[in-house]
Amino acid sequence: MSHFPPPSADPAEQEAGAAFRPKFDASGLVTAVAVDDASGEILMLAHMNAEALSETIRTGEAHYFSRSRGRLWKKGETSGQIQTIRAILVDCDQDAIVLRVTVGGDGGACHTGARTCFYRALGADGALAPVHSSPESP
Amino acid sequence: MSHFPPPSADPAEQEAGAAFRPKFDASGLVTAVAVDDASGEILMLAHMNAEALSETIRTGEAHYFSRSRGRLWKKGETSGQIQTIRAILVDCDQDAIVLRVTVGGDGGACHTGARTCFYRALGADGALAPVHSSPESP
Repeated sequence: MSHFPPPSADPAEQEAGAAFRPKFDASGLVTAVAVDDASGEILMLAHMNAEALSETIRTGEAHYFSRSRGRLWKKGETSGQIQTIRAILVDCDQDAIVLRVTVGGDGGACHTGARTCFYRALGADGALAPVHSSPESP
Repeated sequence: MSHFPPPSADPAEQEAGAAFRPKFDASGLVTAVAVDDASGEILMLAHMNAEALSETIRTGEAHYFSRSRGRLWKKGETSGQIQTIRAILVDCDQDAIVLRVTVGGDGGACHTGARTCFYRALGADGALAPVHSSPESP
């Protein structure tokens, strides 16, 4: 079960208050970005419904909602790439979440085997080309 | 005008190919995360329709689609907080974008005056508390 208070109608309260009032969209989702806690590298972007957010907080391990499969999904449940939560940040209007995580298993986050899902960059020619770790990574 | 090829039905092509085939959702949007190119700090999360993505690529400055206002929005058009694009990364299935940017104006990204929209963290007590810059920031 998951019980979060609804977003405040007062923007000042929503943006500056201490109350956690996640703002789920029309599909009942907030966007979550998982970041490597040590390097700051963005690993992946996914979505959470209230249950996924609640389970993430309760267990200290990232849970998401799979839009394609229509179900709760614990990251790493099959791959071992468990994301242990180090911090949960929320944005101004509380419709987006940043998870600072430590990744288990082989340390990767992408189902393709890449460390991060963001492994390609758009070139000036309009084509995608592989990138490597971000500058702040070791 | 904006013309992107549709996502490939072949996951291998979508995930490993060189063709940029952004996967817009049922609302015609992809999610975009803006990151400070120098520090790696996550600044904000917003959405792009095909026009916003196309304008971002064409001009080298971040454009988003405002879901609340239902229109194209050039970041910084009133605040001066223009986001100059240093790199555009795309994730495995091409439904999320990371923009590595240099911020103009006062260097902030949030309409509240904060440098980043992610200025609060969820505490063990369930309340939000202010955070400061991420560890890799100066």
